[in-house]
Amino acid sequence: MTGIKTTSEKKLMLFSGRAHPKLAEEVAQELGVDLVPTKAIDFANGEIYVRFKESVRGADCFLIQSHTAPINKWIMEQLIMIDALKRASARSISVVIPFYGYARQDKKHRGREPISARLMADLLKAAGADRVVSVDLHADQVQGYFDGPVDHLFALPVLTQYIGERVDREKLTIVSPDAGRVRVADRWADKLGAPLAIVHKRRDPDVANRVTVHEVVGNVKDRVCVLVDDMVDTGGTICAAADALYANGAEEVVVTATHGILSHPAPDRLKNSRVSEFVFTNTLPTPEELDIDKITVLSMAPTIARAVREVFEDGSVTSLFEEEEEEER
Amino acid sequence: MTGIKTTSEKKLMLFSGRAHPKLAEEVAQELGVDLVPTKAIDFANGEIYVRFKESVRGADCFLIQSHTAPINKWIMEQLIMIDALKRASARSISVVIPFYGYARQDKKHRGREPISARLMADLLKAAGADRVVSVDLHADQVQGYFDGPVDHLFALPVLTQYIGERVDREKLTIVSPDAGRVRVADRWADKLGAPLAIVHKRRDPDVANRVTVHEVVGNVKDRVCVLVDDMVDTGGTICAAADALYANGAEEVVVTATHGILSHPAPDRLKNSRVSEFVFTNTLPTPEELDIDKITVLSMAPTIARAVREVFEDGSVTSLFEEEEEEER
Amino acid sequence: MTGIKTTSEKKLMLFSGRAHPKLAEEVAQELGVDLVPTKAIDFANGEIYVRFKESVRGADCFLIQSHTAPINKWIMEQLIMIDALKRASARSISVVIPFYGYARQDKKHRGREPISARLMADLLKAAGADRVVSVDLHADQVQGYFDGPVDHLFALPVLTQYIGERVDREKLTIVSPDAGRVRVADRWADKLGAPLAIVHKRRDPDVANRVTVHEVVGNVKDRVCVLVDDMVDTGGTICAAADALYANGAEEVVVTATHGILSHPAPDRLKNSRVSEFVFTNTLPTPEELDIDKITVLSMAPTIARAVREVFEDGSVTSLFEEEEEEER
Amino acid sequence: MTGIKTTSEKKLMLFSGRAHPKLAEEVAQELGVDLVPTKAIDFANGEIYVRFKESVRGADCFLIQSHTAPINKWIMEQLIMIDALKRASARSISVVIPFYGYARQDKKHRGREPISARLMADLLKAAGADRVVSVDLHADQVQGYFDGPVDHLFALPVLTQYIGERVDREKLTIVSPDAGRVRVADRWADKLGAPLAIVHKRRDPDVANRVTVHEVVGNVKDRVCVLVDDMVDTGGTICAAADALYANGAEEVVVTATHGILSHPAPDRLKNSRVSEFVFTNTLPTPEELDIDKITVLSMAPTIARAVREVFEDGSVTSLFEEEEEEER
Amino acid sequence: MTGIKTTSEKKLMLFSGRAHPKLAEEVAQELGVDLVPTKAIDFANGEIYVRFKESVRGADCFLIQSHTAPINKWIMEQLIMIDALKRASARSISVVIPFYGYARQDKKHRGREPISARLMADLLKAAGADRVVSVDLHADQVQGYFDGPVDHLFALPVLTQYIGERVDREKLTIVSPDAGRVRVADRWADKLGAPLAIVHKRRDPDVANRVTVHEVVGNVKDRVCVLVDDMVDTGGTICAAADALYANGAEEVVVTATHGILSHPAPDRLKNSRVSEFVFTNTLPTPEELDIDKITVLSMAPTIARAVREVFEDGSVTSLFEEEEEEER
Amino acid sequence: MTGIKTTSEKKLMLFSGRAHPKLAEEVAQELGVDLVPTKAIDFANGEIYVRFKESVRGADCFLIQSHTAPINKWIMEQLIMIDALKRASARSISVVIPFYGYARQDKKHRGREPISARLMADLLKAAGADRVVSVDLHADQVQGYFDGPVDHLFALPVLTQYIGERVDREKLTIVSPDAGRVRVADRWADKLGAPLAIVHKRRDPDVANRVTVHEVVGNVKDRVCVLVDDMVDTGGTICAAADALYANGAEEVVVTATHGILSHPAPDRLKNSRVSEFVFTNTLPTPEELDIDKITVLSMAPTIARAVREVFEDGSVTSLFEEEEEEER
Repeated sequence: MTGIKTTSEKKLMLFSGRAHPKLAEEVAQELGVDLVPTKAIDFANGEIYVRFKESVRGADCFLIQSHTAPINKWIMEQLIMIDALKRASARSISVVIPFYGYARQDKKHRGREPISARLMADLLKAAGADRVVSVDLHADQVQGYFDGPVDHLFALPVLTQYIGERVDREKLTIVSPDAGRVRVADRWADKLGAPLAIVHKRRDPDVANRVTVHEVVGNVKDRVCVLVDDMVDTGGTICAAADALYANGAEEVVVTATHGILSHPAPDRLKNSRVSEFVFTNTLPTPEELDIDKITVLSMAPTIARAVREVFEDGSVTSLFEEEEEEER
Repeated sequence: MTGIKTTSEKKLMLFSGRAHPKLAEEVAQELGVDLVPTKAIDFANGEIYVRFKESVRGADCFLIQSHTAPINKWIMEQLIMIDALKRASARSISVVIPFYGYARQDKKHRGREPISARLMADLLKAAGADRVVSVDLHADQVQGYFDGPVDHLFALPVLTQYIGERVDREKLTIVSPDAGRVRVADRWADKLGAPLAIVHKRRDPDVANRVTVHEVVGNVKDRVCVLVDDMVDTGGTICAAADALYANGAEEVVVTATHGILSHPAPDRLKNSRVSEFVFTNTLPTPEELDIDKITVLSMAPTIARAVREVFEDGSVTSLFEEEEEEER
Repeated sequence: MTGIKTTSEKKLMLFSGRAHPKLAEEVAQELGVDLVPTKAIDFANGEIYVRFKESVRGADCFLIQSHTAPINKWIMEQLIMIDALKRASARSISVVIPFYGYARQDKKHRGREPISARLMADLLKAAGADRVVSVDLHADQVQGYFDGPVDHLFALPVLTQYIGERVDREKLTIVSPDAGRVRVADRWADKLGAPLAIVHKRRDPDVANRVTVHEVVGNVKDRVCVLVDDMVDTGGTICAAADALYANGAEEVVVTATHGILSHPAPDRLKNSRVSEFVFTNTLPTPEELDIDKITVLSMAPTIARAVREVFEDGSVTSLFEEEEEEER
Repeated sequence: MTGIKTTSEKKLMLFSGRAHPKLAEEVAQELGVDLVPTKAIDFANGEIYVRFKESVRGADCFLIQSHTAPINKWIMEQLIMIDALKRASARSISVVIPFYGYARQDKKHRGREPISARLMADLLKAAGADRVVSVDLHADQVQGYFDGPVDHLFALPVLTQYIGERVDREKLTIVSPDAGRVRVADRWADKLGAPLAIVHKRRDPDVANRVTVHEVVGNVKDRVCVLVDDMVDTGGTICAAADALYANGAEEVVVTATHGILSHPAPDRLKNSRVSEFVFTNTLPTPEELDIDKITVLSMAPTIARAVREVFEDGSVTSLFEEEEEEER
Repeated sequence: MTGIKTTSEKKLMLFSGRAHPKLAEEVAQELGVDLVPTKAIDFANGEIYVRFKESVRGADCFLIQSHTAPINKWIMEQLIMIDALKRASARSISVVIPFYGYARQDKKHRGREPISARLMADLLKAAGADRVVSVDLHADQVQGYFDGPVDHLFALPVLTQYIGERVDREKLTIVSPDAGRVRVADRWADKLGAPLAIVHKRRDPDVANRVTVHEVVGNVKDRVCVLVDDMVDTGGTICAAADALYANGAEEVVVTATHGILSHPAPDRLKNSRVSEFVFTNTLPTPEELDIDKITVLSMAPTIARAVREVFEDGSVTSLFEEEEEEER
Repeated sequence: MTGIKTTSEKKLMLFSGRAHPKLAEEVAQELGVDLVPTKAIDFANGEIYVRFKESVRGADCFLIQSHTAPINKWIMEQLIMIDALKRASARSISVVIPFYGYARQDKKHRGREPISARLMADLLKAAGADRVVSVDLHADQVQGYFDGPVDHLFALPVLTQYIGERVDREKLTIVSPDAGRVRVADRWADKLGAPLAIVHKRRDPDVANRVTVHEVVGNVKDRVCVLVDDMVDTGGTICAAADALYANGAEEVVVTATHGILSHPAPDRLKNSRVSEFVFTNTLPTPEELDIDKITVLSMAPTIARAVREVFEDGSVTSLFEEEEEEER
């Protein structure tokens, strides 16, 4: 006989970069596995060295790295880890990116700009990634940037369940903090059966390129306003929107977003804001100084773990990321 | 001497598929060239045969095809033309797609759907296209689907100039026909210094998945409402939005969109609608039966011609497609 | 332990586009499976939307689509289905193309023509196809256009068995309808031990580019002539060849071809022809008006089903498509 | 000013591998250039080393190598030369392959065979070739194997002119040496207005897989038969065909083919054959022992030189390789 | 006439990332151009945004970025700049990387390591780079990692000229600081006609994996030793080697290396070392605290500028990076 | 149910080209399998034809070919075999190249040279290879040339075990035959705890480009010198180095190298040399005339077989190719 036959097995292995190990550990715990021990060091000149301490040959590898600050370092670490997995003969490499960096640079506003969100997808592919799992991409279209399957998970169920229980549904109004996020707010309004309002930036024609007025379109007087966004970065837009809502008679303003990036000066802004509660998920680590009462952090680990398991077992991740609406035209 | 030296020349050649020759001819006229004579026939079984009647070796080729109905045929013809240009040693192949088909299928709403907008970009690349020139893509992010330069032209200047002169600016309100298009409306509002309103679809909780109410968010009473969208296909959404505006007291409703796809039953809907005027551009041919008074068609040929010339001459297309706003976060 | 191990399974799933569902159903029946329920609709402007109703993650997917008219639509549908399978994490995507469209445009006869047969192979690859299964490609070389495995099935066994039983072998002569198809006729002659003749088009030197004479090379007088070709499209060539045979004294003429494309005006030509029988396979649907006595349609479903099973089970498809002759030089 | 501008020049440079330098020199002479001095040596273990002695940066490079014996060595040398040109920043690399090796392995006759003709095209591409120029490919379809422009030159004009003047046109019959080459013979018959005949191998049903009879289909008695093929390798087929023609009463047999490969034992066969003249072109070097009267060698250098010049000057090579016939179906 | 013809021009444009602008400015000055004004900002969360302030369409772009600390940030900035150039229709993109980061991770020492030097080359390619210009790569083989032309410049001429004039040639010995760099030292020895010595690390067999002894192979007593390396990072190896030389009776030790990375704790080590002079080039910025007498920095700007000009003008960079020795075996 | 499920199996199949079948058979024996019967013939003009006699569909294929003379033929045969495996639907194709040809051309020493080692990697990839297994690549960096996993096996354990037992360890000195191979010698010295010496070529400044002196750096007097290299080709360098050692008082010189290429005039040089023993492995066949006492050949078959098994079983090859040293800087 001119061959050796054997039953084929498959093996799931879970890896974490150094960006947000706490989330990776939670995911591992949900899955009932340990993270693969990994040596990762920074050489004196900043170059990163990575080595896995177990054989990954033939394994379906899931590599978790969230793009928190210092963001370029963690992206590069992830690319290097993918390269190491590829050269070590992993059977497949799925990269789990709870927060996908550079997602906002997803189009050219002006000439001679990069489309960095596409570039990141191409870099992941060039390094050797086969599949991407991510949560609430800034624009749904970013799924199409990666040349391969993308499992796009939604925080909406986790967040709406929390908000739905927390606020008085009779008084609830969903508010989009600007014109570009109305679609997200619309999904919330639909899910919670609430009316919609929009904060709309109006430019003062006398002052070039300056946003001066935040108009509120829709009724917010005496309402509990939930401002929804996909991410809060420096907090400028969202806090200004909240102020505009209070100025228009809102009774209470709650802010919710999947990704709490919370770059400087967000911590101060959030602390000083009249917003009664900020609700984020743990796709990114929360700055220590924001471990305060009015900040609530919900875990995406169960959702991510379930997606990883479904991907590995060739099940359907659909229920995790399905929109409910039908396509219309 | 071991070589022959000669001064390098470059040559622009303009080609048209059979989808919308009128626009191609207008562009040619603007450029002061003739379209390259092309033999294109349909064999009895529907296969398309194409042959160019002049040498294209070393030329910078611009191939205009708009994705009108029968859309799959015209896309395939375009791919075949690109292949023929590639094999005939064109120096570069720029495809001009005034209306980019399948742009709405730009994300997975549900599992096991295609992302056809990305697929089209990959097919163009596989056939041999080097660059894409298009007008008002359904989502800006679609630029990032093509692996190469994309010149994204805007109809906004052409349309706002017309509307700005036509309507009473004091009474003008810009309206988005649904939550997903508020960003476009926002740009109009900004450009024309007008207030914003939104038509928002509200689902009846007792009837699964049915849109029953069109709520208007913002004030439209006694206003001249300009409903803005990137495209009008069957006209269902836009006519329902117009009805909602009249029901909320609008004085007059004008509809404007870059792309008048106007598939059945759009012609009937438009004729029967209370909308006082529909304004489109000629990125797509207008159905003959809509050659009526309340339909206005503005030409994009000068804009496209200018872009072609700039691309050929290595000038800057920026002024043609620049957004004015700065990046903020 | 830092991983989860599980036995690997594989799963065959069978899909059909809307071009020729009857053949797909026959293949499914032969395999003892159901076709995967698939939603496929045409939007008003002609764009196609496809969604599979079951998870395909990890499955070996076989997608049957024959390139019948409207051919560009069905090719595009197939590409879109491949894209959807790829993005839904199919393990492998084999496209079964009983009749491969554009196969005749497999070379440049003149400058500035496309090589559409290669283009189709590249489009399939760009969309995500891993493997192609096809029947009687117009030229064997087209196998080499696809960058991956191609299983090339032959209708010869099915057709020769039928003809061998139907005609008087003593009187049988195999005839090639033109100079370009002699190789196919040669295989038939070899298989059935019959003499060979050729119908050869002679151009009248006084009339530019017009075929005026059909010369018969070889003896056909009082013979039962079986005209063999890979496809019959408009029927012009084959009916003219049959006339030439009768004019040279043939007793009876039977026509056989794998692919009955039968585009207009083939139905009329076939009905009016003196040919006693036309024999095709069901790689393409037969026009309803040709459901008449002198048209015989043989099924390729068992052959295709066997190939699908062998591909899935890693068996040898060789016996299905092996030529018998040895390579000589 | 933030840049340096300068007029762009282009430069043609011509290179030759060591396979058939005589032809390359003839082409250079036709073009009025010298071949670029090139160091090419074989190391003791057979590895080839190549270095060009002049800068090729920015040049349009044409690299002539014919695939004569030892064929694998010369193909590898060509790939190495392409790699060196690519790394030395050539602007474009056109490979001129007068005889394209492995062209006969252009399909899978049986399972588990390579398609070496496609492999060669892929290797050329992988090494860095941008374009291929070749003469009389074994099958026209091979053009489609290379992912880029292929200029396919024909020896037909050179050969038919010679034959047309040499033989008595009244007595001329064009003969195909087997069923697979009838299409070529058909073009000759058309061009010279001569009748057609075919030598057809008949298998003896009692002896498995043995060709025993060479039947002549068509009339050759007292005719001057010109046997036409694209190549003569060992000469077995062509000499047997010539014998069959004489046995059927031919007055004279002339053999013509573009490529005289003439591998052992072709030299003996040709010398001993009753064929009155063999006519080849110089796409391959002629073995010294065949420098005899009845071997005529016509030069393709003017045709190749003209193609090189047209490619460089962005002219039309069409007239060099156009078939005259229109596409019909 | 169906086209527009115009003479082709080419345009050189020079860009700099923010890693080492001083070197880029020196190169610009040598070339007599200005750097293209570029907006590059860090958003609050660390994402980089880049935009060029002039049209780059059709230009040959040279982008200088040296991989100094924070190295991952500057690499990412370079990739983003390449992406922006590609999407803005640059004609060609040459990346000038005076110090190529991660070059030391050019092989797998152990299983499951990355080959980061190859990864960097693939990332540059994926982003859109056409060509790489670099100085003294850690291993010459790294040239082969990039799929395209690499111009590899040498600092040897600049460094040997300085050292040749500075030291007493009679007393000069060239020393390699470890077994892996002997080839570099050999080139120096050859160039300056000096004897060679090696510092060789000997492991103590009783202590696992610890380097305990620095043996000197060759004679260094009373010699002026020039320790040569391609880079000095933390300075540990080189200072230990210098100590070993003094311990073996060296009269003076000078250290020279192309790349002064000088990561912590290099500054202290260099200051405290008995080495009389350290000679680097300016491929990397020198830490301010090392602006002291015994540190000499030579400029590579003239060499880089000359290479840029030659690349642009299609001249020969050979003389800049030619080794003198012939290949032997 | 819309699918067929079955347990997945995997199958190892082992193939050999015709370059060094003896080694392949030893590997097969170690694995307990037979080589897959393969038809491989040379056509008269030198083209190679290959066909496998068993189905390889779905198998993990390992293809052994060592690049011995005639090296270009065997490389081409290997590429053709890979192509045949790919088109026959092999699940994975691992090429085992005990001696990787052209590895020495791994950089550009001068302008306009190829980097043939990278080219070979690209050709393997283009043909369809998924993975490479090789032994002692000339430079470790060559691993990075292949775009996929490379298992790099070391002969060091086999060779050092033999030498360690054969020579008097007290008298042992490891010698590098030139400056470029000191790193290899360093590993030997480390492994066997022996001192190091180097033979260093000194150029005579009066005679251009001629090596005239072989200086010995380090102490070799009365020592048993083991000259270590990765390969011995014509034997010139190594025999000259041995002479230099004897001239400097060495008691005995043993030569060892992984790859015994032994091209002409190596056989004569080895026979005539004063070297007491030459030790090679069987990565290449040994010329018959060297089947003499002072040539020792050690088998790599067990190492290769173990690597093949580990790759197939998804085990860790690490222990086979791990360097022991830690990364330092």
